[in-house]
Amino acid sequence: MALKNDLILRAARGEKVERTPVWLMRQAGRILPEYREVRAKMGDFKELVETPEFACEVTIQPVDILGVDAAIIFSDILVIPEAMGLPYEMIEAKGPRFEKTIKTAADVNLLKIATPDDLHYVIDAIKLTKRELKDRVPLIGFAGAPWTIFAYMVEGCGSKTFSKAKKFLYTQPLVAHQLLQKITDSTINYLRGQIAAGADMIQLFDSWAGILSPEYYNEFALKYISQICNAVTAVPLTVFAKDAHFARRKMGKLNCNTIGLDWTMDIAESREMIGHTKTLQGNMDPCLLYADFSTIKNETIKMLKAFGPDKHIANLGHGLYPDIEKDKVKCFVDTIKEFRF
Amino acid sequence: MALKNDLILRAARGEKVERTPVWLMRQAGRILPEYREVRAKMGDFKELVETPEFACEVTIQPVDILGVDAAIIFSDILVIPEAMGLPYEMIEAKGPRFEKTIKTAADVNLLKIATPDDLHYVIDAIKLTKRELKDRVPLIGFAGAPWTIFAYMVEGCGSKTFSKAKKFLYTQPLVAHQLLQKITDSTINYLRGQIAAGADMIQLFDSWAGILSPEYYNEFALKYISQICNAVTAVPLTVFAKDAHFARRKMGKLNCNTIGLDWTMDIAESREMIGHTKTLQGNMDPCLLYADFSTIKNETIKMLKAFGPDKHIANLGHGLYPDIEKDKVKCFVDTIKEFRF
Repeated sequence: MALKNDLILRAARGEKVERTPVWLMRQAGRILPEYREVRAKMGDFKELVETPEFACEVTIQPVDILGVDAAIIFSDILVIPEAMGLPYEMIEAKGPRFEKTIKTAADVNLLKIATPDDLHYVIDAIKLTKRELKDRVPLIGFAGAPWTIFAYMVEGCGSKTFSKAKKFLYTQPLVAHQLLQKITDSTINYLRGQIAAGADMIQLFDSWAGILSPEYYNEFALKYISQICNAVTAVPLTVFAKDAHFARRKMGKLNCNTIGLDWTMDIAESREMIGHTKTLQGNMDPCLLYADFSTIKNETIKMLKAFGPDKHIANLGHGLYPDIEKDKVKCFVDTIKEFRF
Repeated sequence: MALKNDLILRAARGEKVERTPVWLMRQAGRILPEYREVRAKMGDFKELVETPEFACEVTIQPVDILGVDAAIIFSDILVIPEAMGLPYEMIEAKGPRFEKTIKTAADVNLLKIATPDDLHYVIDAIKLTKRELKDRVPLIGFAGAPWTIFAYMVEGCGSKTFSKAKKFLYTQPLVAHQLLQKITDSTINYLRGQIAAGADMIQLFDSWAGILSPEYYNEFALKYISQICNAVTAVPLTVFAKDAHFARRKMGKLNCNTIGLDWTMDIAESREMIGHTKTLQGNMDPCLLYADFSTIKNETIKMLKAFGPDKHIANLGHGLYPDIEKDKVKCFVDTIKEFRF
């Protein structure tokens, strides 16, 4: 497998690159009319995730339409709880809902440790997508970080405070650790399965990192991320812990290649805190893409210069918002691809 | 007016105190059965806010029941948009809803600059509460910081991303500045009215500080907070910008006495960034109060030691959650009041 464009992999490994590579979180999604068309033919979001042919189609769309330097498999972080025995529904405009949630040690004991077989539809989607991509760009696999998955399994839905999930940490710390370990073991199995199926790079999303105190984040989140980093080493790995500004020094010591930054993290300060061995990813405010084309260009170039020519993978600081115009996204991508230091 | 307990005012001014003072954000609220009783007699939240006798009653409750070192006037940050011409409703379990929102320069032009007369019900509540408190503890007045008020006036309701409000900054920056200036002028009038009515201390709440990039926060938020700090100097002023970890160095230079910290901000790091001239307020994770009594005690003492004996006002890092037990809150307060360095 000789990739025609391996810029992102080389940047992740800290090698010199001809230009900064770029991909976007939620690049396969509602911002593309082509995605909305496929989606309209399907029943719902989960059917799309569980049907390899459709997942493959929407995964490749942004490579064709936006010209990004990587594809990321179309899936959801909540496939892991489902594979462990906790099914969910995705409710339009509301988000995920779990019928059962985890309340006690007995609930944790009932959960299984997931294997790639339990997630064959993602594995099949990765295999199919690798075939269809024809080595044009790398394919990124992903999973939720254990704390974020835990938060949904206990809370049962999205929340501003995730106070049920946090209450669990404060009242049943030992059971919390048991659940986090089961999630971690499942995630390691799952990510190894993704790599065996062809994923060229892995990203861990810790979407709810920012609601824990620094001490609790170390104890209930970073410890398990570290296990995953040490177990999944066959391809470059990125850790994106949104809003975990307080954990940057410790993240610099993880056994991974790349740390994702959100847009509230100052670039120079983050580089100083994380150190010079890691590649950094990010970190434009998604709302910049509401601005006019010249503002987008100027701010994007400012961001590229702040990161510098090496050890940077350009991205937003969070996923694309669904009402952002495709041409604005393309302007962001093109500005990065045209820029030379 | 000789206050019997002025610990909080002295701590805010950086003077030595016999023990660390404590109050709690949302101390007058649903965690108290006595509050829920008053609330049940009233139609809704806004009626409570707009009736000085009831606002006074629930403001004093936590002084009697929890033994905190200050009262904070029971009100809402959204009284300012309403006084400027944008009324809102508070919908049970959902939050605020504005019928009209700000979309254009013409909408901004229609808004008035509020005066204390437009907010006579808050002014009357402060006068009445001062009388009823009988100088036992100081009374804190407050307002929302301009960016947070702007966010609600444009978005029209709560939001995870406030992407409409942020889009306004990116697409109509000049109009945004006009609106922010009108909010700032209204807020200065309002806070001066609160002080004239008897407020002993003021807190600015920038609840949505954490969703702006550092650069945008300087330009669209800190600039206006700074105007308020320079205009409202008759009593000690606290700035609490939740999640604005990136702005701590700049907040250290504001013309105010105290900076509030949320629980994601490391205490030693914040002290270093903010400098030694400011008093710091905070910053326990509200979810600690779900833990058992001995954990609450131990963690609270750890927090007190991390802040040290001077220039600290103990508080949570955010408002109390409504399902926290009163006795747990009392344990937090008592631990602080009993502790001696």
